[in-house]
Amino acid sequence: MTTRPVPNRTAHAAVLMFTALLLVCGSVHAGTDPLPSWNDTAPKRAIITFVERVTTPTDREFVPPAERIAAFDNDGTLWAEQPMYFQLLFAIDRVKTLAPQHPEWRTQEPFASLLKGDLKAALAGGEPAIVQMVMATHAGMTADEFQAIVKDWMATAKHPVTGRPYTEMVYQPMLELLAYLRANGFKTFIVSGGSIEFMRPWTQRVYGIPPEQVIGTRLKTKFEVRDGKPVLLQLPAIDLIDDKAGKPVGIGQHIGRIPIVAFGNSDGDLEMLQWATAGTGARLAVIVHHTDADREWAYDRQSSVGRLDTALDEAQAGGWTVVDMKRDWKVVFPFEKR
Amino acid sequence: MTTRPVPNRTAHAAVLMFTALLLVCGSVHAGTDPLPSWNDTAPKRAIITFVERVTTPTDREFVPPAERIAAFDNDGTLWAEQPMYFQLLFAIDRVKTLAPQHPEWRTQEPFASLLKGDLKAALAGGEPAIVQMVMATHAGMTADEFQAIVKDWMATAKHPVTGRPYTEMVYQPMLELLAYLRANGFKTFIVSGGSIEFMRPWTQRVYGIPPEQVIGTRLKTKFEVRDGKPVLLQLPAIDLIDDKAGKPVGIGQHIGRIPIVAFGNSDGDLEMLQWATAGTGARLAVIVHHTDADREWAYDRQSSVGRLDTALDEAQAGGWTVVDMKRDWKVVFPFEKR
Repeated sequence: MTTRPVPNRTAHAAVLMFTALLLVCGSVHAGTDPLPSWNDTAPKRAIITFVERVTTPTDREFVPPAERIAAFDNDGTLWAEQPMYFQLLFAIDRVKTLAPQHPEWRTQEPFASLLKGDLKAALAGGEPAIVQMVMATHAGMTADEFQAIVKDWMATAKHPVTGRPYTEMVYQPMLELLAYLRANGFKTFIVSGGSIEFMRPWTQRVYGIPPEQVIGTRLKTKFEVRDGKPVLLQLPAIDLIDDKAGKPVGIGQHIGRIPIVAFGNSDGDLEMLQWATAGTGARLAVIVHHTDADREWAYDRQSSVGRLDTALDEAQAGGWTVVDMKRDWKVVFPFEKR
Repeated sequence: MTTRPVPNRTAHAAVLMFTALLLVCGSVHAGTDPLPSWNDTAPKRAIITFVERVTTPTDREFVPPAERIAAFDNDGTLWAEQPMYFQLLFAIDRVKTLAPQHPEWRTQEPFASLLKGDLKAALAGGEPAIVQMVMATHAGMTADEFQAIVKDWMATAKHPVTGRPYTEMVYQPMLELLAYLRANGFKTFIVSGGSIEFMRPWTQRVYGIPPEQVIGTRLKTKFEVRDGKPVLLQLPAIDLIDDKAGKPVGIGQHIGRIPIVAFGNSDGDLEMLQWATAGTGARLAVIVHHTDADREWAYDRQSSVGRLDTALDEAQAGGWTVVDMKRDWKVVFPFEKR
C-alpha cells in the first residue's frame, strides 16, 4: 500500500490534534462513567438507573438527600474473606504474639493447637473457639490501645495467598461505587458481622467511611478513670452480634432509619437485605456473588466462610440484583489495575 | 436649646443616609455575629475563640473537619426539663390513653396512682416506677409504630406551665450554637439519658440533627418477619442506659472517637465531659447552669430533676466553661424573640 507523502508540518499538526482529541474524549469518558471497573452489564445499569431516579427531583422515586442511606456488609462485599475472615487471621497472629504472657495456653484449647501450628484442630471447636480467641485478643485493654494494635497489624501483615497488605484486598468496583453514591448525596455505612473495633481504625482511609458510620459486632465497654485518666475499657463480653437478624438491630441502633440501598454477599446479610427492601419507595438490594476462581475465589452454597444459599434463593424470588464477579467486574482488586 | 433650621431637602437626605448607614451596619453586624442570642460575656468569647482556633489551618490547635465531633446532652441542655423530663410527661399521657386496654392497671402501681391523678404517689417508687411506665408505653410495638405515636404527641401536647408545644421549649442560644458549629465543619450529636426512640422522630426538624446522630438510652429490639413484612420490635428490656458512665459507652458505640466539644447541664453529663476533655489537643467542655427563675427555672445542687452538683465542682476544678443562663443568654426560648 502506498500513501501520498504529506508535508511534515501538516502531519505533525494532525498528530497533535488527534492526540488532543483523544485526550479530551478520554477524559470526558472518564468523567461520565462513575463505575469504570464495572462491565456494562445488568448490575451496573440497575445501579446507575436507581441512583439517577432517586436523585432526580422530578422523578416519582426521588428521595431527599437525608434519607439516602446505603448499607454495606464488609467481609466478602467490600474486601475479600478467603481463605478465612481477615479478623480471624489477626486474632491468630495476636495469640502467637501474646503466648509468652499466657503459659496456660500451652495446654488450653483452642490456643494449644493454634500454637502448635494446627489451625484445623484449633478451629474444630467452631464458633465458641473463635469467640474465645477473639475475647483473648480484643478484650482487657482500652479502645485506644486496641486501635493502635490493629493499625500496626494492618501496616505490616500480609495476606497468606497474595502477599498483599489486607487493606489492598478491597474490591476496586466497590470503592468506585462508594464514591459514586457519596457524590450523589448518599451516606455510606458499613454493617458487618466483623467487630466494630477492628474496622474503625482504617475504614476512613481505605473506604472513605468515618468511624461513626461503621456498625459491627461489638464488645461491652466500661468507662473508668484510671490514674486520673478517663478510659473506655473493652470487656470480655459480647454486646451485639451484628450478623443475620442482628444486622437490622444494629442498623436500628446506629442509624434509626431503613437504608434504601444494601449490599451483601452471604446468608449473614439476608435480614439486612430484607430490611432494606421492606421500606416504601425505591430500594436497591444487591448480592455480590463470588464466581471468579481466577481473579478471586469462587464459592457460595457449600462454603464454610461466607456461605451464600438462602439469600441467593431470596434474591431470585425478590428481584434483587446479583453481581456475578466474573462477568460483571472488569477489575477485582486495585493492584490489578495498570 | 435652640437649633438652626436646616433646609428641608437636606434634612431629608441626611435622615435617609443615616438610615441607610444603620441598615448596612446592622446587617453587617447580624452577618458577623453567629450567636446573636448570647450576651458578649466569657462563655460566648470562649466558644468563638475555640471554634476559630480549631478551624484555622495555621493554628497549632487546628483540628481536621473529620475530627470535629460535638456532643450535646438534650434534657436541660438543648431543651427544658422542668417541671419534669418531657419524656416522663409523654409516658404519663400514654398510660392514660392505654388504660382502657389495661384493666389490671387500676390496682397495679405506679399505674393506679397515676390514673387517680396522684402523680406524687405514682413517682414515689423512684426509678423502678419510671422504668415500668416507660416499658409499658414504649415497648411491645414496632419502631415505626412508636415513632408515629411520638410525632402525634409532639404535634398536640402542650407544656403544663407555658402551654407551648414541647418542641418550642428549646433554647434559642443553643439552636444558634448548633448551626454555628455545623457551619464550621462540626458534626453535631445528641448524647442523652432520654430514650433514642423518643428523640429521633423530631431532632432533624427541631435541631437539624439527623436520627443517625442521636445517641440515647435504648430498648432492646428484635427483627422479625410478621405476616411477610419485616419489622423491628421494641422489647420491654433496656439495652443501654445512656447516662452518667453510660454516656462515654454510648459515644464509643456510635461515634468511635472522642468528641472535642461537649455540652451538658447535670451530674448525668459528668463522665461525658470528663471523656471529651480526656483527649489530646483543643477541647471545649461546657455546663449550662440554670440560673434564671424568671425566664426559665433556677436549680442545681438540690434539684430532683437535672441535679448539678459534682459536675459543677469539677467544672471549677477543670477549667470548664459554665454558662449562667441569666447572665449569658439574651434570649432563652425562641418564642421570646420579637
